[in-house]
Amino acid sequence: MPDDGDAPRGGRLFGTDRLAAFSDGVFSIAATLLVLDIAVHPPGTPLQQVLNAWPAYLAYVVSFETIGAAWLAHNAMTNRLARSDPIFLQINLLVLLVVAFLPFPTRLTADALHDQNAERVAVTVYGLTLLAIRLLGAALDAYARHEHLYSSQGDGDGVQGTRRKLLRVVIGYVIAIIIGLVLPGLAVALYFGIAVYLMLPFRQVVRLLFQRP
Amino acid sequence: MPDDGDAPRGGRLFGTDRLAAFSDGVFSIAATLLVLDIAVHPPGTPLQQVLNAWPAYLAYVVSFETIGAAWLAHNAMTNRLARSDPIFLQINLLVLLVVAFLPFPTRLTADALHDQNAERVAVTVYGLTLLAIRLLGAALDAYARHEHLYSSQGDGDGVQGTRRKLLRVVIGYVIAIIIGLVLPGLAVALYFGIAVYLMLPFRQVVRLLFQRP
Amino acid sequence: MPDDGDAPRGGRLFGTDRLAAFSDGVFSIAATLLVLDIAVHPPGTPLQQVLNAWPAYLAYVVSFETIGAAWLAHNAMTNRLARSDPIFLQINLLVLLVVAFLPFPTRLTADALHDQNAERVAVTVYGLTLLAIRLLGAALDAYARHEHLYSSQGDGDGVQGTRRKLLRVVIGYVIAIIIGLVLPGLAVALYFGIAVYLMLPFRQVVRLLFQRP
Amino acid sequence: MPDDGDAPRGGRLFGTDRLAAFSDGVFSIAATLLVLDIAVHPPGTPLQQVLNAWPAYLAYVVSFETIGAAWLAHNAMTNRLARSDPIFLQINLLVLLVVAFLPFPTRLTADALHDQNAERVAVTVYGLTLLAIRLLGAALDAYARHEHLYSSQGDGDGVQGTRRKLLRVVIGYVIAIIIGLVLPGLAVALYFGIAVYLMLPFRQVVRLLFQRP
Repeated sequence: MPDDGDAPRGGRLFGTDRLAAFSDGVFSIAATLLVLDIAVHPPGTPLQQVLNAWPAYLAYVVSFETIGAAWLAHNAMTNRLARSDPIFLQINLLVLLVVAFLPFPTRLTADALHDQNAERVAVTVYGLTLLAIRLLGAALDAYARHEHLYSSQGDGDGVQGTRRKLLRVVIGYVIAIIIGLVLPGLAVALYFGIAVYLMLPFRQVVRLLFQRP
Repeated sequence: MPDDGDAPRGGRLFGTDRLAAFSDGVFSIAATLLVLDIAVHPPGTPLQQVLNAWPAYLAYVVSFETIGAAWLAHNAMTNRLARSDPIFLQINLLVLLVVAFLPFPTRLTADALHDQNAERVAVTVYGLTLLAIRLLGAALDAYARHEHLYSSQGDGDGVQGTRRKLLRVVIGYVIAIIIGLVLPGLAVALYFGIAVYLMLPFRQVVRLLFQRP
Repeated sequence: MPDDGDAPRGGRLFGTDRLAAFSDGVFSIAATLLVLDIAVHPPGTPLQQVLNAWPAYLAYVVSFETIGAAWLAHNAMTNRLARSDPIFLQINLLVLLVVAFLPFPTRLTADALHDQNAERVAVTVYGLTLLAIRLLGAALDAYARHEHLYSSQGDGDGVQGTRRKLLRVVIGYVIAIIIGLVLPGLAVALYFGIAVYLMLPFRQVVRLLFQRP
Repeated sequence: MPDDGDAPRGGRLFGTDRLAAFSDGVFSIAATLLVLDIAVHPPGTPLQQVLNAWPAYLAYVVSFETIGAAWLAHNAMTNRLARSDPIFLQINLLVLLVVAFLPFPTRLTADALHDQNAERVAVTVYGLTLLAIRLLGAALDAYARHEHLYSSQGDGDGVQGTRRKLLRVVIGYVIAIIIGLVLPGLAVALYFGIAVYLMLPFRQVVRLLFQRP
């Protein structure tokens, strides 16, 4: 690739600091933009209007938590990178593209309340977006392994665990998407549960709760 | 937690640089998004419209100052971190979730002018949000102490002081929230005062003003 | 320039870390703001409304990919910088100004569907913006070479390649802009193709696809 | 200040990295948010609508350039910091508060076209905001000098130059604000000129243009 002056060449190391800065920027902005879609609407007293906006609060919390979990996974991945390459950057950009898209289905879901049909459509788009984030994240990880982009140590036992966890999460999303076609509210609860599961290792929570002296 | 490949393991050090970058991103974006909710509305001459928007300016200043104070406290906390863990990250995400939510009650408060009932609701939501930021920040600090996440030195005398200050601030918020049910405008002034108190150590201001040669 | 206290002096080294942070910020925010312009509109069932918004999704993807490619080129450039100077900073600010402008023609293009005349105008503005990003990026690169701002090594063979690639891309944009006057949809497809071409070195993709053992 | 646990103590060093990250975040977000206020409006053909929005483009360019110049000055200042203290952080927060406010008068100015009275009000608010950014920046600089927050070297000859330049710029803003009461368009041109003057040292531009071999 000698004629490729303004993109990093295939065989060259590519710094991961700027990649992390750009990615962290997209994650934090996408999370913070979610608030712009929270609004109150007539009719009702001011208090009723604030209380009636609960689907917007719920959608905000679920999406914020999901972006947090995706950021954490991305973080764990990019921190292990020894180098990067153009295809990795392209897949990473796709991950960010879908993460940055999340405020749209969030708004759609928050707006769809009281219309069963609209709810079903919105929650399905929402679930497909979450599934796409996870699958593209897995593709990013698979590519990094295939091209040996990670630094060597600590990779051994993690591989099996990651794949098992990924499979569980993907199955969880698929089930939630199917449930959402009938019971959109339950699907949203499941999306929240999956995000918390991704953020918090179950065993550590148990340890904190029960193993205190 | 050997099977937990895409989240940091409980016993492992977790870098705090990316945590700081993500958190600083959310704080700075939440502060900067506040301007989007400032708008002028008819009726009136152009000058009257600009002047009539004063509640929006006031809400902007109070929220910006509050986010600044919350950023400063968060900064002081995370700078002392020696390591992090998943539960810390989850509590931190909750802090950021509530900080990023602040533009919503800010907009609510700015829009509620001239309707005493709406003002009361808006200012109460605003105060509860501020209280939640502070309490979650305290929970983050308490967890970090409990799990010995801070680096060792300089922790001794700060503990007592922080707890005393936190108590004062929480009492201040509770009083302001109660006052806000009757006099919403006064509550907003108190929220501003608390934010300035959090930013500026009183003694240093006095020293600057009176001890100059 | 001895009397120039609050801007870096001509002959002085100027740190490039803050330049990178500010630039990465603008790139990531511009990319993430694109989602704010995606919206569904009546008439139609909820599903039809979501499907009818496809031009907004397409415009989002093309602009996100273009900002990603522009970030990558900017990154490759600024990573090679040994120092900076005021004129470089001014040209860089112009690059960022046009990158941050991109959400406007993106929204224009997404809104113009079904009106052939509006589409032509929107896609032309879009193409001119993309061309401006690339030409200003080339000006930034040319200035850095002229003033010897890059660190010395690795510059030799890259120069010719960059110029050849730039020429191809500029010709591509000019052709797409002309085509867009007649067939706006085809022009959008070309803009997407150019962005992917800028992100992904063709030879590396071929290698990945065909040279696996 | 022994009881001041969650804010940095007066006599303690306070890291400037996080300060820079938060500030760079606010500057880059404020600049990038400006695009959200660019919009086309009926009546007219699509082309006329795009052309008629020129005041929005102009306001965008002037504000982007001004934020760029303010960022550059802030950058030059904070890069010289050896340490920080709570009052410095508070003044810095005020600088950021006014910088982040700039999108509001920018939108006001872009919207005020064709109404001479509205234009006068908008351009005056705009000018006062620019003046406030510069005066608060000067206050930040003065405080840093007074408290010896800068690292020692390279401070000697810069002091006089900075003060002379500041005086010129403040006088420029005051004149432009007065002119804006009669000729708002001319004032906007002056604001742009001042921003370019702040970004680009005149002598270096002359050198580049005339001293090439």
